[in-house]
Amino acid sequence: MAQKKVKILERKQEVLRSLKSFGTQIYNQLDQGVFPTVKMPSRSTENINYDPVLRQFILGEKNVDRSTRNIRHIKPFTQLAWVAMFSNELTSQRKTSTLRDVYYSAQAYEMTFADQQESNNIITDLETLTGFAREDFNIFPEERSAIFGDLDIGYTVPGYEGKTVNLTSHPDGVLIGPAVTSAEFIKTTADKVIAIEKGALFTRFIEENVHNKHKALLISCGGQAPRQTRSFIRRLHDELGLPVFILTDGDPWGMHIAQVIISGSANAAHLRDLNTPDAVWSGVWASDIVEYKLPTDPLDEVDIKRLNELARDPRYQNDPIWQREIKLALKIKRKTELEAFSRYGLTYIVDEYLPTKLEAAKGKK
Amino acid sequence: MAQKKVKILERKQEVLRSLKSFGTQIYNQLDQGVFPTVKMPSRSTENINYDPVLRQFILGEKNVDRSTRNIRHIKPFTQLAWVAMFSNELTSQRKTSTLRDVYYSAQAYEMTFADQQESNNIITDLETLTGFAREDFNIFPEERSAIFGDLDIGYTVPGYEGKTVNLTSHPDGVLIGPAVTSAEFIKTTADKVIAIEKGALFTRFIEENVHNKHKALLISCGGQAPRQTRSFIRRLHDELGLPVFILTDGDPWGMHIAQVIISGSANAAHLRDLNTPDAVWSGVWASDIVEYKLPTDPLDEVDIKRLNELARDPRYQNDPIWQREIKLALKIKRKTELEAFSRYGLTYIVDEYLPTKLEAAKGKK
Repeated sequence: MAQKKVKILERKQEVLRSLKSFGTQIYNQLDQGVFPTVKMPSRSTENINYDPVLRQFILGEKNVDRSTRNIRHIKPFTQLAWVAMFSNELTSQRKTSTLRDVYYSAQAYEMTFADQQESNNIITDLETLTGFAREDFNIFPEERSAIFGDLDIGYTVPGYEGKTVNLTSHPDGVLIGPAVTSAEFIKTTADKVIAIEKGALFTRFIEENVHNKHKALLISCGGQAPRQTRSFIRRLHDELGLPVFILTDGDPWGMHIAQVIISGSANAAHLRDLNTPDAVWSGVWASDIVEYKLPTDPLDEVDIKRLNELARDPRYQNDPIWQREIKLALKIKRKTELEAFSRYGLTYIVDEYLPTKLEAAKGKK
Repeated sequence: MAQKKVKILERKQEVLRSLKSFGTQIYNQLDQGVFPTVKMPSRSTENINYDPVLRQFILGEKNVDRSTRNIRHIKPFTQLAWVAMFSNELTSQRKTSTLRDVYYSAQAYEMTFADQQESNNIITDLETLTGFAREDFNIFPEERSAIFGDLDIGYTVPGYEGKTVNLTSHPDGVLIGPAVTSAEFIKTTADKVIAIEKGALFTRFIEENVHNKHKALLISCGGQAPRQTRSFIRRLHDELGLPVFILTDGDPWGMHIAQVIISGSANAAHLRDLNTPDAVWSGVWASDIVEYKLPTDPLDEVDIKRLNELARDPRYQNDPIWQREIKLALKIKRKTELEAFSRYGLTYIVDEYLPTKLEAAKGKK
């Protein structure tokens, strides 16, 4: 897998090239005596469409221009150029930062943002312009998830180049941060990925040896999986050829945690490869509530409203399971949680439920 | 440090003994033909006092009896006996669980809890009765924080016995979960602990080599540090003799994150060793806002209300810094964040602020 390392380093080069090309464009326009202008796809709602082939949201044909000829555009144009410059610094110096940090760092350059929302927006502009995610520019979110399982990775971050570690080395799991997401995959005995909504279940799975029994890499999403974790899952699927199974609570919020891993979010319609279209939502389904006689809570009004929204969402049309389970949830008016299986003993979810679900998914393929 | 391992295993034995002794007491009472009864300290507000010697909240002299002679006590008594039995299973089988899990597991035994609040309460009863924290009974919370730094630990969890790992092995950090908190400390070159409120700063500190430059073990609290992390910090202080410095945002919520690490919470008045009285809150102080001309936000009404509450809290009387900083914050009516130092460049907090604060703390001792 030596070419993988090349791929990661090549991507970093492409990121830097995209920034340089933006800068070059501005200089060329100035040399030609024209007002610098950029054109990028519009991110307004009417320009966001679900693409059934790519199985994610994409931006349509509509473009927006940002021209320094227009006095109202000068501020956002300058902010965009600054964010590109700052991203170039981060990426070439191999330092990481956060959305919050970028907002404050602007002040070191006397660059003004009214608030963090404004700087976040400009960072999304840079993503749209270049097609790279902010994580590619070393701008990371605060939230972290974790991984555990038999995978050797090779770090590429400063001070760790050439170091190979196995992701079973710490039985509590390793954070998925800038170092893990920029690592190359060396080797694995795993033949699947299991992504789990909750940290507590992740720990239970490690204790019950699921990584060995089911040859699985385990991922704790920590609720809605951060973007870097979703793109990491995509890499595990694409580069290692591993099928991905997702376990969430049996409620509309759990369904959507799974769906965003599978189909991405509208907010990221301008980006690719953050989602894993072939990933499978393995449960907890509304039909599992019935079949396993699980303890439940009643759906409240917000849950019902959310289920009706999901039923109309184009991402929920791509597999009949979604509509079936939404309909059933609305019919039985109940929801449940992964922990509910503990009513049959702490290991039931690992000994009985998980194997059944993995077997069922195999039959379906 | 071979005696440390003994200490961890001995503690597990003590935990099991405390459960056995509770069970034995019930059997003896039955043998003697009396209604089983337990006595434990009351956790009602008027029985919670701040102890200036222990520098934490403790329970007073008031006791409550729970007697099976009283029909209203039969249910909570039975629940308590069940929780003790279940904790004994968890501890002796070396499985971990969560508060949520315990609630559902009860159903496997046809033990009824009206809701999770009720089962949480009974678990706190067991803590009060035995003096051990629920983590000692292998009941863990969902939240996780992380650690990074030159510390060799020896795992004691099943499958990892005798394995020693160094906590710099993963540059994103390692989760502080059941395996890390039950590990023995083997050796370290660190001479201090730095606990940081936010994951993003934790990552920045790792990238900027703070662990080497300042010989520090770095801990990411992830907001309010979970109980297991607070008790882990206490162990780092007591067993390794390391001073502890805490960095939080410069607002009442950050102050209280530091204070709970130092002085504990009223909710844990029935327990010991979850707090580190000698730990030092190093910033961000209101006076740093002035001194470093940091970007700020105005205090809102909730912040002001909270600052006034803190000013009256007995924990805030033990060091003049607290009252001084509360007073100043109320005067300048501003708050700030750790990231605000980025206005002077990304590394300013590491290159300038941190060394100044560590030096100041040294002078004070």
